[in-house]
Amino acid sequence: MSIRTGTLAVLAALLALPSARAGEAPPTTASVLETSTADDWRRPDPADTLYLDLAGGRVVIELAPGFAPAHVENVRTLAREGFWDGLSINRVQDNYVAQWGDAAAGEAGARGLGGARTRLPAEFERDADGLHLAALAEGDVYAPEVGWAEGFPVARDPARGRAWLAHCYGMVGAGRGMAADSSTGAELYAVIGHAPRHLDRNITLVGRVIRGIEHLSALPRGTGPLGFYTEAVQRVRIERVRLAADLPEDEREAIEILRTDTPTFRRLVEARRNRHEDWFIDPVGRVELCNVPLPVREAAR
Amino acid sequence: MSIRTGTLAVLAALLALPSARAGEAPPTTASVLETSTADDWRRPDPADTLYLDLAGGRVVIELAPGFAPAHVENVRTLAREGFWDGLSINRVQDNYVAQWGDAAAGEAGARGLGGARTRLPAEFERDADGLHLAALAEGDVYAPEVGWAEGFPVARDPARGRAWLAHCYGMVGAGRGMAADSSTGAELYAVIGHAPRHLDRNITLVGRVIRGIEHLSALPRGTGPLGFYTEAVQRVRIERVRLAADLPEDEREAIEILRTDTPTFRRLVEARRNRHEDWFIDPVGRVELCNVPLPVREAAR
Repeated sequence: MSIRTGTLAVLAALLALPSARAGEAPPTTASVLETSTADDWRRPDPADTLYLDLAGGRVVIELAPGFAPAHVENVRTLAREGFWDGLSINRVQDNYVAQWGDAAAGEAGARGLGGARTRLPAEFERDADGLHLAALAEGDVYAPEVGWAEGFPVARDPARGRAWLAHCYGMVGAGRGMAADSSTGAELYAVIGHAPRHLDRNITLVGRVIRGIEHLSALPRGTGPLGFYTEAVQRVRIERVRLAADLPEDEREAIEILRTDTPTFRRLVEARRNRHEDWFIDPVGRVELCNVPLPVREAAR
Repeated sequence: MSIRTGTLAVLAALLALPSARAGEAPPTTASVLETSTADDWRRPDPADTLYLDLAGGRVVIELAPGFAPAHVENVRTLAREGFWDGLSINRVQDNYVAQWGDAAAGEAGARGLGGARTRLPAEFERDADGLHLAALAEGDVYAPEVGWAEGFPVARDPARGRAWLAHCYGMVGAGRGMAADSSTGAELYAVIGHAPRHLDRNITLVGRVIRGIEHLSALPRGTGPLGFYTEAVQRVRIERVRLAADLPEDEREAIEILRTDTPTFRRLVEARRNRHEDWFIDPVGRVELCNVPLPVREAAR
């Protein structure tokens, strides 16, 4: 069984093309971004923007309250109360995840969660009603439908009327134990390898790294089981985690993210589907969810 | 248009299940590997095994002469003649590739290729005749058919009778300029991020990292365009590159790779499709080409 139907699929993809204006060069990622307008970009809400500060640099995460409201609220509380300050990145598993939190969690000496809740519902998926999905024509191996909504890669099952965040590179989730509802957001991970889409709907995703993923992805790999560091000294210290909204305005990053609900974004997807950069011999004609970048740029202050 | 057909696809996947023997626990990756036999494993041919030695450790690459015979022959020659010794890793682009070779290539002071050929045909694809593909039932976003052959992730177009290696994590290719036939194998890259499948059939893949990818994937990212290091001092020195066949037997790595043409490998794919580890709430029921590991283990000497 193949999920790609050859010529028909290519035809359908061609029919889905935004029509090129006469005399216009076919779009590339660079040309789409160059011709974008100010309205194509948005500033992430400071209440949804988390700064994870390591000695090596700052990782900026956009939270997704539309998908995991309880977890995001907990993460906000934990950040405000300095829960992660002085804790560490404890696990870096190659082609998989970097994970941070309290290395003593569940043991004597573990930090309390303060004002955060110790028990949350699993937030593996949400009602698809009211979610505007910019659907990808190619479909997907893992889900009936995929695309983008609210700036995130998303999967949807129309039959069940449910939607969920997809584990693309850079997505951030809340580690859990064996029980579905055992995550609190105190233990977080970021995807640093090929999209582990088998985690979709098995764990709660809370957001996405929008800048500084290299401060996690280039860390030494742990040599213990699951990529945990085997010695305390190997752990990477977290200087501080804060919500942008809890910092004075002049200490906030000036970041803009390309909207995913616009004609410009559709052109970007098309530019990634049919590669018109001179280097490409075969223009490809297909694109997969996690191979479409979600561009971020420095905003004017 | 969706390439996944919901219930039907799940049914088809179930029908493709290797039948479980009565009383047997459903397979997991661990149980499949534990119950594998000696015949399920193979030793890579020393003539196809390349050692890339960095200060940080050894990267072992299995070459794919069945797909890129001319490039592999050139790589063998370059290794034998010490071409890469003292050269460097010059580019590490996050979520993409690490690339090595002569930083002065194309400029004054560039190393000559010695006995290697300076012009090779592009080897983007091969005749599919004679290739035994263990096809993946789920299909693929990028190619009409995918699966495994000769130990590598492979895509196939039955209509054209062509097959090619797929850009999964860890695959190694030969960098090229603008012309399709401008690669020689002297400049190599390894995939260290989400599978850039749009490179398939656009560039010649020559093999796969079978051990030590972390010595490439955890390197500092380059901050220049395309992830090139901006200062010579940032480049990561290559101590030595050799073909295993050119070293005395007692200096060769004792590595075994799980065969991909066996019932055991089909069970492994099934164990990755339907996740029976206790941690999984949703067993998934689907698996994508690049999410199936190709296990490697230390062999008895």
